[in-house]
Amino acid sequence: MAEKEENIGITVKKEDDMPEWYSQVCQKAELADTSSIKGFMVIRPNGYGIWENIQDYFNKVIRERKVRNAYFPLLIPESFFKKEAEHAEGFAPELAWVGGAAEEGEERLAIRPTSETIMYDSYSKWIRSYRDLPLRINQWCNVLRWEVKQTKVFLRTREFLWQEGHCVYETEEECDKEVYMFLDEYKRLAEEQLAVPVLTGKKTEKEKFAGAKYTTTIEAFMPDGKALQCGTSHNLGQGFAEGFGIRYIGKDEKEHIPWQNSWGFSTRLIGAIIMTHGDNKGMVMPPRIAKDKIVIVPILFDKTKKEVLKKADELEKKLSEYGVIVDDREGYSPGWKYNEWEMKGVPLRLEVGPKDIEKKHVVVVRRDNGKKEFVKEADLIKRIPKIIDEMHGDMFAKAKKHLDESIVEVKSWEEFEKVVKENKIAKAPFCGEGECEDWIKDKSGGITSRCVAEGKPKDKCVQCGKKAEEFVYFSKSY
Amino acid sequence: MAEKEENIGITVKKEDDMPEWYSQVCQKAELADTSSIKGFMVIRPNGYGIWENIQDYFNKVIRERKVRNAYFPLLIPESFFKKEAEHAEGFAPELAWVGGAAEEGEERLAIRPTSETIMYDSYSKWIRSYRDLPLRINQWCNVLRWEVKQTKVFLRTREFLWQEGHCVYETEEECDKEVYMFLDEYKRLAEEQLAVPVLTGKKTEKEKFAGAKYTTTIEAFMPDGKALQCGTSHNLGQGFAEGFGIRYIGKDEKEHIPWQNSWGFSTRLIGAIIMTHGDNKGMVMPPRIAKDKIVIVPILFDKTKKEVLKKADELEKKLSEYGVIVDDREGYSPGWKYNEWEMKGVPLRLEVGPKDIEKKHVVVVRRDNGKKEFVKEADLIKRIPKIIDEMHGDMFAKAKKHLDESIVEVKSWEEFEKVVKENKIAKAPFCGEGECEDWIKDKSGGITSRCVAEGKPKDKCVQCGKKAEEFVYFSKSY
Repeated sequence: MAEKEENIGITVKKEDDMPEWYSQVCQKAELADTSSIKGFMVIRPNGYGIWENIQDYFNKVIRERKVRNAYFPLLIPESFFKKEAEHAEGFAPELAWVGGAAEEGEERLAIRPTSETIMYDSYSKWIRSYRDLPLRINQWCNVLRWEVKQTKVFLRTREFLWQEGHCVYETEEECDKEVYMFLDEYKRLAEEQLAVPVLTGKKTEKEKFAGAKYTTTIEAFMPDGKALQCGTSHNLGQGFAEGFGIRYIGKDEKEHIPWQNSWGFSTRLIGAIIMTHGDNKGMVMPPRIAKDKIVIVPILFDKTKKEVLKKADELEKKLSEYGVIVDDREGYSPGWKYNEWEMKGVPLRLEVGPKDIEKKHVVVVRRDNGKKEFVKEADLIKRIPKIIDEMHGDMFAKAKKHLDESIVEVKSWEEFEKVVKENKIAKAPFCGEGECEDWIKDKSGGITSRCVAEGKPKDKCVQCGKKAEEFVYFSKSY
Repeated sequence: MAEKEENIGITVKKEDDMPEWYSQVCQKAELADTSSIKGFMVIRPNGYGIWENIQDYFNKVIRERKVRNAYFPLLIPESFFKKEAEHAEGFAPELAWVGGAAEEGEERLAIRPTSETIMYDSYSKWIRSYRDLPLRINQWCNVLRWEVKQTKVFLRTREFLWQEGHCVYETEEECDKEVYMFLDEYKRLAEEQLAVPVLTGKKTEKEKFAGAKYTTTIEAFMPDGKALQCGTSHNLGQGFAEGFGIRYIGKDEKEHIPWQNSWGFSTRLIGAIIMTHGDNKGMVMPPRIAKDKIVIVPILFDKTKKEVLKKADELEKKLSEYGVIVDDREGYSPGWKYNEWEMKGVPLRLEVGPKDIEKKHVVVVRRDNGKKEFVKEADLIKRIPKIIDEMHGDMFAKAKKHLDESIVEVKSWEEFEKVVKENKIAKAPFCGEGECEDWIKDKSGGITSRCVAEGKPKDKCVQCGKKAEEFVYFSKSY
């Protein structure tokens, strides 16, 4: 039997060595692979299935919001980047240039790191009048940023997949409103689908998107005490519209410059899921977003095999809307199969053997806490969605508890240093200045701001002692 | 009112100048735009919606066939192309090279023109034993081929979107079987979803995919007498497996080389739809694949406006599964709105005014033939899917008639020349040799083989007079 040599689980503990644990889970649960090309990843079907379900869910959300999907070119002419100065400067170091066009004596082309410029070139042709606004377009695509830092599948790779929404409005008010509307949808996706709690708020001036008026973010907090930026929604102001000549004739018959926002999340979300929920047995898929929510393991004996397999097929059909795998492979013991599917993180395991058939029940085992339940066959259709909701709720609550308990309000630099050293989040009074933030990063060994928190501080800036404009969350980060 | 200046329809007739007609339909129905970058296109929401529905449909099909989606890197190292000699030669002229890696003193990287090589590099790591087979993976992605020919949105662009399926099997028989299984699914997609009839069969040796043992194809035939290759399914033999070192240990405990196939269709399908079904009023969307199948135009008078808008909303909710647009814009006449939605090709128009409400019916107008029907409100839910099926059937039948009537069996070179000059398809006895096919292309001013037809010819090869191995379809093509 091949089982012994193949069935090797995760060999380090999550709490002991999270980076190594993460690599092993990605590899062994077949979520993603490093590629032969430095800095690139292969997203395997187990990982890509999560992305597909995120896409399905989010496409429904944005369709409701009157956003439509489209597709814009992969390559962007050099001159386009120069039309918005801050944007150009922000992305310049990460661009990959393509040879083809240069050889024809034409302008240099870069692979898109984000699509503001190429999209707004088209927008300037499409938008004529207030009747064309608001314009709300989204695209799902690959982007390339030539990272020089150490790469890690899902978290930091030179190529990743994402969605980028790009909207145009008549007024600042509408634009602002929808920046936060999309941010709220991101929070809902993270919390209600992925069971990943997030902090939300504005980025500081220093951390905002290159070319934006302001940036808002959802920030998750990993078990190792590092924050992970999981999605951003920007008010771009009128700078891009000016650069690309986007104008509209208003109801007043005069020409106006419109307002724009953009918002995106990426396959990095899958990394957040793995780190938040995975355990020392491997991956744990949040049940609402898992493509295959159920694995059925028939318990096979020679005498009753036929009957048990028939029952497994019957259950598969009955539950097909949840995505069901029937593991009827020969030559593997049930225990071996349990380990394999636990490694892969399938949310629910259904065990069915001759005795279960006799008793007209099925054994349902939750992946997150191993809780076993005997469910009457007749109740299955009603009980499964409830178990899924309970499991989601428990997974979210556990992660939320960690996040809530990690936030510590600090008043002094000493407190600040202590809190972030303990892998927690310092909620600190902050002056808001870029220079001060640079100092904080330098003095603390790389701590960055995550986002502005609620509340109005009475104390002075934790670092420079100037007037504190707001509370800001600071922590280690990915 | 803005209507007069904006409401300019297609200014040439399809039958008079199809290339110009095609460009205008793409532009004015907002299906796609040329881009500021030479040879690239922007797929606008009206066009992209078709692609999304094709994806939804086809994802269901391949999931049934146990194919799973994944994502592989955009960039491919130069050395990978060299592992299969014919493949490398076939794609060399069309590659776009990226600067980034070269600057780091590493190997040159090309943007994928197709993903055999990058995927099989991973496959060689993943496949160990017969237990890992069959392996069936598909990816949806963008590919780049640096075309030097004149480009045209959807039909020939340097970048396009596609799906590429890549499967690995133990035996040649399984591999062959599924090459045709996927080809059949392509035919079903084209005919039963897009209402585009196709010829299916093997490509000649000359026209097969670079690196394949053989290629099969679905070929549509456009109203201007040019064939359009719409999807191909290849048996790749064992060449790639040998090149990339893909091996498996069989049940016999010996090492074997597996068999592989690959199969793909692209956004070119949208071009086939436009050309096949569009008319002098603009686009005609095949109803099964249209994202928005219904537009409701409320007929508004001051007195009854409120009531009519309420009814329109009610109908929208009732029919929401079909994708419904309610055009309640002020300042446009119903006639102007009819023209606009006809231009955009929405399959069904529902008109509802005060008199219709009184009579408890709705006016349903088909886009393809303008047929008007008064449908009792109570019957709407039952009648709409039937109208959609009838419309699909009529659109398919019309295109099928054109295809069938265009095929002419020829025996001599004179007949051959006459038939292709008349923009028809010559079904010709052919020797099968690449050299002879080159002569045919030269002598006829660019006619190429489309695929092998059924039947065994008694006559000699139409060009060289040698023994004819098979009938082959020849025609002009895109």
